[in-house]
Amino acid sequence: MIKKGAASTHRIRSTPFTSRVEAAGVTSYTAYNHMLLPTVFESLEADYEHLVRYVQLWDVSCQRQVELRGPDAARLAQLLTPRDLRKTASLQGKYAPLCDETGAILNDPIIIKLEDERWWISIADADIKLWAKGIAYGMGLDVKVFEPDVWPLAVQGPLAEELMTRVFGADVRGIRFFRGRWLKFQGTEMLVMRSGWSKQGGFEIFLNDFSLGEALWDELAIRGEALKVRAGCPNQIERLESGLLSYGGDMNEDNNPFEGGLEQYVDLDAEIESISLPALKRLHGKHKNLLTGIAFPKVVDVPRLVFIEEGRVVGRVTAQVWSPKYQQFIMFAMMERERVEASAEISVDGVTGSFVPLVCEY
Amino acid sequence: MIKKGAASTHRIRSTPFTSRVEAAGVTSYTAYNHMLLPTVFESLEADYEHLVRYVQLWDVSCQRQVELRGPDAARLAQLLTPRDLRKTASLQGKYAPLCDETGAILNDPIIIKLEDERWWISIADADIKLWAKGIAYGMGLDVKVFEPDVWPLAVQGPLAEELMTRVFGADVRGIRFFRGRWLKFQGTEMLVMRSGWSKQGGFEIFLNDFSLGEALWDELAIRGEALKVRAGCPNQIERLESGLLSYGGDMNEDNNPFEGGLEQYVDLDAEIESISLPALKRLHGKHKNLLTGIAFPKVVDVPRLVFIEEGRVVGRVTAQVWSPKYQQFIMFAMMERERVEASAEISVDGVTGSFVPLVCEY
Repeated sequence: MIKKGAASTHRIRSTPFTSRVEAAGVTSYTAYNHMLLPTVFESLEADYEHLVRYVQLWDVSCQRQVELRGPDAARLAQLLTPRDLRKTASLQGKYAPLCDETGAILNDPIIIKLEDERWWISIADADIKLWAKGIAYGMGLDVKVFEPDVWPLAVQGPLAEELMTRVFGADVRGIRFFRGRWLKFQGTEMLVMRSGWSKQGGFEIFLNDFSLGEALWDELAIRGEALKVRAGCPNQIERLESGLLSYGGDMNEDNNPFEGGLEQYVDLDAEIESISLPALKRLHGKHKNLLTGIAFPKVVDVPRLVFIEEGRVVGRVTAQVWSPKYQQFIMFAMMERERVEASAEISVDGVTGSFVPLVCEY
Repeated sequence: MIKKGAASTHRIRSTPFTSRVEAAGVTSYTAYNHMLLPTVFESLEADYEHLVRYVQLWDVSCQRQVELRGPDAARLAQLLTPRDLRKTASLQGKYAPLCDETGAILNDPIIIKLEDERWWISIADADIKLWAKGIAYGMGLDVKVFEPDVWPLAVQGPLAEELMTRVFGADVRGIRFFRGRWLKFQGTEMLVMRSGWSKQGGFEIFLNDFSLGEALWDELAIRGEALKVRAGCPNQIERLESGLLSYGGDMNEDNNPFEGGLEQYVDLDAEIESISLPALKRLHGKHKNLLTGIAFPKVVDVPRLVFIEEGRVVGRVTAQVWSPKYQQFIMFAMMERERVEASAEISVDGVTGSFVPLVCEY
């Protein structure tokens, strides 16, 4: 966690919204894609309680875009993921694991098609631009790969649609899940999508003019006053209750998408040109691990976050939190698949937890 | 800055030395290559005063290695940098900017040749593994690119050689600057180089067994007691006094090596296969900016860290600190080259600073 106040450096950048986030009382940051990401305002619990009732503004500028532009943009996008992108509509986003030639997951972004020759990869924490650029250069593709000046601001919570409508107009209501529209704020068109890293409903505004950041924040804050809008951020309690994965935390390059529970995003039978698909066809059904949810009736302490049975490591906890919604202690764990299939329970200090399949649905 | 205590997550990893760093009283961390990097122990000033007199142990595990292994390893290493690597000896390191096909700097690592078919790129903060993998895949090279389990521990300060000799034996004294040897600690061979991100003299131990981390730290601590060894970290005062650059801070992808003052690491006339060399030949002599040192007789406050003259931005401060050694307020700034060449001084609030050429010498 990074302390408030002068936290940014040139290497870990601030954002168009940093002044507002600081004024709103952020209490800690983390670094994500070389940028500041708030992690707590009041407290994890208080932030959560507010998020599930009202509406919050999240500075998720660190969700950088990798833009692919040019005649080979669609080809490059498809090369990077085993998910079939052929039927992607303009202004549609698709959650899509990026994998290398061995099938290892390099990232789990939303891939957004803006136009046939213009795509955004809205990334988790890793320099995917370098991977895409390397592939493009090495294969001699006719595509430019770069990070555009775009800073997403997420508006999340059950009252998000009402607030967004007040600022961007009734067009907002017509936006379907994971679809976007170009909407105007103070005369500038920016992409607005129904998306975001919570299951409370909401939007992401892809701000494309740094100088409008504070005005956009302020407008949302003023119009949302009666909706009790406040600053927030991705919340560990909410994301675990909602089964949302964190790349680098829950799964990483040591895993393939089957281990990460992302099988439905691997189109094994599609006739597509994807770097990872040949390896993933070979790996299918043979993966040794499986990311799994586990629910305990009370808080347990897993020593060093490692499950050991009969002297053998059978799994590792990747995240854990007390769930106010389920009144259970919930965790994600990268478990041996055999162990998960052998029995539906695991015990810690005499407390029995139940495995809960993690189905990442977008 | 990241707070002490439970600071690591799965996404921002701890290291083999984290327990010792915490016990030594680290007061803040930053995140670097998805890993914890200590930034302060006692205070910036106290850490500095100790570093320039005695010897310190630095947990620089975040200086990750990108290993290139296979028949095309040397070819790939050369593709990535415009510096001529042909005469690199085994166990020699070379400071070498990595640049893309437009000449933009992607990183400024030390490239170490272990064997003809095995190289390490010892990286600054960016996922260079992805870039190298992408190039290798796209060009169909016969080389494996991966991040080995290696965690560098730097031993820095004027008494470093004495301490290293006590732990690794007299062989240490024979290691020349930026050269290495495989030396044993508790029976395990690891690379030891005379290198490190200070100008106080010192070594880097490339620990290759996580489980030996605490033993290695403890041995250095015990043998160094009379040398006043203590925990430290890269120090902002020392590195500015020494003219050491920080990639991502002082220069980044917006710059080419000429702008970063790295011209001597671009071998324009070498007949080598390098991705960036064609672009760099075109750019040579035409770069618009130049990273420059500036020395002021007293502390000055550059508003928003931007130099404005006659209504025009002529430069940006990238780092600044009071120098105890020079008794001056010193900074690095990315300045318009024309402005630097036009006059050797710049004024802030009536205080005149002098430009000091930054020559990055390794």
